Amino acid sequence: MNMSRTRDTRERLVVIGGDAAGMSAASQARRLKGPDELEIVAFERGHFTSYSACGIPYWVGGEVTGPDQLIARTPEEHRARDIDLRIRTEVMEIDVDRQRVRARDLESGAESWTSYDKLVIATGARPIRPDMPGADAPGVHGVQTLDDGQALIDTLAHTRGRTAVVVGAGYIGVEMAEALINRGYEVTVVNRGSEPMSTLDPDMGRLVHEAMEGLGITMVDDAAVTKVLTGEDGRVRAVATENAEYPADVVVLGIGVRPETTLAKAAGLPLGSHGGLLTDLAMRVRGHENIWAGGDCVEVLDLVSGQERHIALGTHANKHGQVIGTGVGGGYATFPGVVGTAVSKVCDLEIARTGLREKDARRVGLQFVSVTIESTSRAGYYPGASPMTVKMLAERRTGRLLGVQIVGREGAGKRVDIAAVALTAGMTVEQMTALDLGYAPPFSPVWDPVLVAARKAAAKVRAS
Amino acid sequence: MNMSRTRDTRERLVVIGGDAAGMSAASQARRLKGPDELEIVAFERGHFTSYSACGIPYWVGGEVTGPDQLIARTPEEHRARDIDLRIRTEVMEIDVDRQRVRARDLESGAESWTSYDKLVIATGARPIRPDMPGADAPGVHGVQTLDDGQALIDTLAHTRGRTAVVVGAGYIGVEMAEALINRGYEVTVVNRGSEPMSTLDPDMGRLVHEAMEGLGITMVDDAAVTKVLTGEDGRVRAVATENAEYPADVVVLGIGVRPETTLAKAAGLPLGSHGGLLTDLAMRVRGHENIWAGGDCVEVLDLVSGQERHIALGTHANKHGQVIGTGVGGGYATFPGVVGTAVSKVCDLEIARTGLREKDARRVGLQFVSVTIESTSRAGYYPGASPMTVKMLAERRTGRLLGVQIVGREGAGKRVDIAAVALTAGMTVEQMTALDLGYAPPFSPVWDPVLVAARKAAAKVRAS
Repeated sequence: MNMSRTRDTRERLVVIGGDAAGMSAASQARRLKGPDELEIVAFERGHFTSYSACGIPYWVGGEVTGPDQLIARTPEEHRARDIDLRIRTEVMEIDVDRQRVRARDLESGAESWTSYDKLVIATGARPIRPDMPGADAPGVHGVQTLDDGQALIDTLAHTRGRTAVVVGAGYIGVEMAEALINRGYEVTVVNRGSEPMSTLDPDMGRLVHEAMEGLGITMVDDAAVTKVLTGEDGRVRAVATENAEYPADVVVLGIGVRPETTLAKAAGLPLGSHGGLLTDLAMRVRGHENIWAGGDCVEVLDLVSGQERHIALGTHANKHGQVIGTGVGGGYATFPGVVGTAVSKVCDLEIARTGLREKDARRVGLQFVSVTIESTSRAGYYPGASPMTVKMLAERRTGRLLGVQIVGREGAGKRVDIAAVALTAGMTVEQMTALDLGYAPPFSPVWDPVLVAARKAAAKVRAS
Repeated sequence: MNMSRTRDTRERLVVIGGDAAGMSAASQARRLKGPDELEIVAFERGHFTSYSACGIPYWVGGEVTGPDQLIARTPEEHRARDIDLRIRTEVMEIDVDRQRVRARDLESGAESWTSYDKLVIATGARPIRPDMPGADAPGVHGVQTLDDGQALIDTLAHTRGRTAVVVGAGYIGVEMAEALINRGYEVTVVNRGSEPMSTLDPDMGRLVHEAMEGLGITMVDDAAVTKVLTGEDGRVRAVATENAEYPADVVVLGIGVRPETTLAKAAGLPLGSHGGLLTDLAMRVRGHENIWAGGDCVEVLDLVSGQERHIALGTHANKHGQVIGTGVGGGYATFPGVVGTAVSKVCDLEIARTGLREKDARRVGLQFVSVTIESTSRAGYYPGASPMTVKMLAERRTGRLLGVQIVGREGAGKRVDIAAVALTAGMTVEQMTALDLGYAPPFSPVWDPVLVAARKAAAKVRAS
């Protein structure tokens, strides 16, 4: 089938995308099958491989000194493990029938076909860029890739003014607001929603709004950016909404991402309602025995709602890669799904969530009770005890845990893991009240905040 | 039946013991039944009620300024809620047949009988005091009650020398070592076991040993104290083991505790093999419809081993009290058992465990695999990432999680909660590999340390 070369007896794995999912898959496949059994070719259109995009805000903010620290494994390190890694090479087409991909060397422009026995699609996500005048002006930056991060850092180094506008107030938005505050900018966050962090219910988002204002960040909610205004030099000078203008020497777009599935769509592979590839539990593309997909380009099953979702998160991408590589290597592993756990911080404010928000629960037709409690991270008398708010949703009558949201300071964020495990196990809030959680005064009040919420939720379920 | 007074139509609840379990029970019962329905009489032999004994090391160490901060509710506050609280009054006898208790006013010595319709026994635990010469000498202190804590603090205030010996290297021992270090003492910890923290396996205890030595604490393992040596003034001057003498201006006993069930035993109530009261799931004493028991004087079911254990821990006592008060008040609640979670710290060293150690698993005849991994609390590149060691035990073949032990720095301890919930839910380590835990660089590596351990354990189970 492949006209361009003589096939040897080895199988060939082709990987599209050199970040977490793709290269985890390649590495795990290599662990299971040596180069005498399996040839591995990986294409990456950027300069970098296996990096932590989640770390970009901390690089921009100065906590991390350079891109090298964010790279788990360089192209050279992958090559040393007998992975034929081709950077700056973009796959332009997947030919499913003839089991081959067409790739372009972005330096030379040369194109060629490479055949595969097994294919891994790990094309990631692309940032949503607002369709408005000036969105491409110099000084306007996304922060999706290390290349993006480097470009933003270069801009910051050459910008005299100290005003910054962050468009969007999700994880990327709030983390970039922290980064720019840390670099001494006057930061305005412009956000379409009624509160920042729309992955939280608005009442919890309100706490984030207030805390961010307390950090000196100007929060503009309920506002859509209509255009980016440029100066005589063509560079950004301000951001305009319907009602106002906000001066900006630099603009960071943190509006969110969509699955990058252009290639997959053109190849006729199955996409879900969020535009992501659909796979089975072993991360095989549905209906295709020899094609796997993972990372930010797939949809995942939400184990709480039973619906497919798109979640771009490095921890999932790594798990996908591990599962895919095991499957490619002839083993068996599965990725059962997610419960929607996420954690973030803005300076010392910690924000976490898992499971369903009120609106998610309504959307899937669940009847629920909701409680919100205040507690502290440590025994109230222990130094450093800081306040935290925990919101908990449980199904009416059954009492099944549906979701938890936490906003607080040090020690708040990772407490969401308790709820994440309980959600995965299908626990009721009544069962959670008896959980044997770690207690000592420096670590928790005698009733952990999650237990306090569970008690209140259980009482409300009983009364409902 | 009660000769001493005319019964009114109200029921009377008598509570023996004014700390966490007893007063939580009384408070919860009061919430459910007003004073027109239920009279509540509580006896406490000490001066204080509802206090955090777990906080005593931090009071001694100076992180907490005084006993008031450790008191959740004073006798006066309880009385304001219509609880007839009698401090410095010791119950001397329980007369189960006639439903009454005999109490002695410790100031006047006067004794009287009080009848009950319902009885709560929350007599707590008593510290193990070594049977050796000098154990009662001035300068030798237990730290079980606030009165004990105050006595130790008074001793420290009047002691010129700066040497301290802590006998025992369990939770109380290591926390008291920290407290005394914080007060500027030269601290020696003398410990019978081969390593400190016998609630961990010895390989993990070794990490604690090394870290405590790193803090300047002299660790003496495999050594039993044979006597306390006193000076001419009768005060402690040193502690002797079979092989050596350790100078000591003050000695703290942290050897452990036993259930305080003298009264219960004399009354013929059922005790388990550890000397604690045996109850049903609703914390009713077995065979006694109108007697409940909770807190440090009961045995609890270990949900992992299926055996009864004695665990003196404020968080359990509070849960027991809540369950008992609900039952006394006519509601229904249960305490299903524990998985053996505990967390502690020595300066910046965090120590946590849940489930079974290797020797526990052997004792109950389980075949298991054991893995130990090293990881970090945050993404490796994020400032403050600190190393942590996670040990995980899983049953052979089934892969059921059996136990987790963690030793590390900031962010290590409370990660044990992930395992505590997974144990409660009966998860396998394979299932744990897919847990959707909170990830962002300031909070966790992309594979949380618990997931890294679960992956390694799952691989070992598959290979076993």
